[in-house]
Amino acid sequence: MSDNEFGHRFEELRKTAKALRLVLLDVDGVMTDGSLWIGPDGEVFKRFDVKDGIGLKRLITSGVEVILITGRISDAVKRRAEELGISEVYQGVEDKGALARRLRQEKGLSVSQVCAVGDDLPDLNMFKEAGMRVAVADAVKEVVEQADIVLENGGGRGAIRELCDWILTAQQ
Amino acid sequence: MSDNEFGHRFEELRKTAKALRLVLLDVDGVMTDGSLWIGPDGEVFKRFDVKDGIGLKRLITSGVEVILITGRISDAVKRRAEELGISEVYQGVEDKGALARRLRQEKGLSVSQVCAVGDDLPDLNMFKEAGMRVAVADAVKEVVEQADIVLENGGGRGAIRELCDWILTAQQ
Amino acid sequence: MSDNEFGHRFEELRKTAKALRLVLLDVDGVMTDGSLWIGPDGEVFKRFDVKDGIGLKRLITSGVEVILITGRISDAVKRRAEELGISEVYQGVEDKGALARRLRQEKGLSVSQVCAVGDDLPDLNMFKEAGMRVAVADAVKEVVEQADIVLENGGGRGAIRELCDWILTAQQ
Amino acid sequence: MSDNEFGHRFEELRKTAKALRLVLLDVDGVMTDGSLWIGPDGEVFKRFDVKDGIGLKRLITSGVEVILITGRISDAVKRRAEELGISEVYQGVEDKGALARRLRQEKGLSVSQVCAVGDDLPDLNMFKEAGMRVAVADAVKEVVEQADIVLENGGGRGAIRELCDWILTAQQ
Repeated sequence: MSDNEFGHRFEELRKTAKALRLVLLDVDGVMTDGSLWIGPDGEVFKRFDVKDGIGLKRLITSGVEVILITGRISDAVKRRAEELGISEVYQGVEDKGALARRLRQEKGLSVSQVCAVGDDLPDLNMFKEAGMRVAVADAVKEVVEQADIVLENGGGRGAIRELCDWILTAQQ
Repeated sequence: MSDNEFGHRFEELRKTAKALRLVLLDVDGVMTDGSLWIGPDGEVFKRFDVKDGIGLKRLITSGVEVILITGRISDAVKRRAEELGISEVYQGVEDKGALARRLRQEKGLSVSQVCAVGDDLPDLNMFKEAGMRVAVADAVKEVVEQADIVLENGGGRGAIRELCDWILTAQQ
Repeated sequence: MSDNEFGHRFEELRKTAKALRLVLLDVDGVMTDGSLWIGPDGEVFKRFDVKDGIGLKRLITSGVEVILITGRISDAVKRRAEELGISEVYQGVEDKGALARRLRQEKGLSVSQVCAVGDDLPDLNMFKEAGMRVAVADAVKEVVEQADIVLENGGGRGAIRELCDWILTAQQ
Repeated sequence: MSDNEFGHRFEELRKTAKALRLVLLDVDGVMTDGSLWIGPDGEVFKRFDVKDGIGLKRLITSGVEVILITGRISDAVKRRAEELGISEVYQGVEDKGALARRLRQEKGLSVSQVCAVGDDLPDLNMFKEAGMRVAVADAVKEVVEQADIVLENGGGRGAIRELCDWILTAQQ
């Protein structure tokens, strides 16, 4: 993402980024590259990115809340969230939009204070509750089309670090 | 795949896609990128793609049956099939052509109602029972040459999602 | 590899390929992409390629013997060799050249009947016993320089299938 | 890295390389590509590169000491270090700069005799104790900017082999 690419629109986004209080992250395809490692008893682990983690820790330290929302269920996500200091993790979520709405309202936030990051169809409902809608580079077409920002990096390959750095810069 | 690339031929394929009732999928190299993760006691897991899964669930919901046919044997394939709602899985298959023929006939389907997706030599026999023969982007030469469609994405890297989306669009 | 690239030299190589009776394969970086998956108790598995396997089975069926020679030790290599019908596997080998020489002589083969495939410095000694020296695409400079053929594909990413197909074509 | 690219600056670096006695390596993102494989009970393994290992063994044999310094903690790193003959491994390090300083002083080395390799923000403190500061190809911007050398290869994808070969050549 560069200033030149977006111009006026970009300046607006920077203002939105500055006011963000909450980032909602999908997991598979966003925190990972979408790989599912399945063994005889189901999913055995997930592959996360060390640089994403450093970005998320800095973002959380700066006062922005981060919540993970995923349709799947695994202990790996809980472990990774613990490492990063992410205390709210919602797994096995059928309707991400309803959950995003409830979370936003419980925390007394306006839509413009929420950022949502996704890669696939189930994330579109979540977008409705977010003033800043973000697609990873390898998101499906429908998500890219509804996003305010399309990151340069793919899920699990630096996308989240890119976003964290950008929000942190905007908030300084 | 785009309309322009194929022209008339493409229009024919779209008609075939519209009439499809059954999709036969190879596993290694098609549902995965062909990686075999071997530990001290044999294969330990397989790597599937989360976006492929969303495509397959939508395809199945729309009424197209999906069956997995593989020459190898692993519980990982059974687990992934369960997740996706694929009830028929054939493993350790020596002659994919004979099985494809039997399945097609038992279900009372014509060749033109069957799609088969492969990446390597053992899949060629399966192609004989299918009106729509599909190769993933990284299929071997012999499979590419006999395919009606060569997908833009490789196995385990979006190929199946690409196909599902295309069939779903054609059937609408 | 194409006829045009090599011309006269290529024709010679094809003759050598036609006469091959034995293929010596390094494992890490040749049968795999060089990844070492290390857990708390050491190496946990290796990642092989399903298409390489189909090529090797066909090569062995055609009457060419295949032997694995590796400096490391793991049961994963034994398991993969069993799957492929490779009965001779030498692990923990310090001097690949001495072993290659002994194997060649025990089998009563001339240097011109042996092919050796490598990617790194320990494979260079093995090259001395082979009439056809092959480097995978991502071999180190020293191995590329001493190779008769540099494959288009990297280790664990199709290199071995490429070689098998080429030998099989030459032998027909 | 080539002579032409750097010219005079490069000649200086070669002199520094010639005098190096100690190489400090970050682990995640330097010895690996930054992937974190998380299972139900935390990190399950790390993915190292076989060619990096051959380079490190040669470097150590030539008399240069290698030490691993990482912010994370895993037995996988201990196992890999044992394989490579690296006897000093520091895990769970909060302040890499303080540790690097202590190690350098205990060994009676000047800053110009130390090389440090990193990819992310926590490595910058370590850079202060090193006369040769090295960034892997996929390091974050801040690390690239403070590095004397940016390697052509990414972490876990040949970066360390590239560096070892370069130091060994300089020292001959």
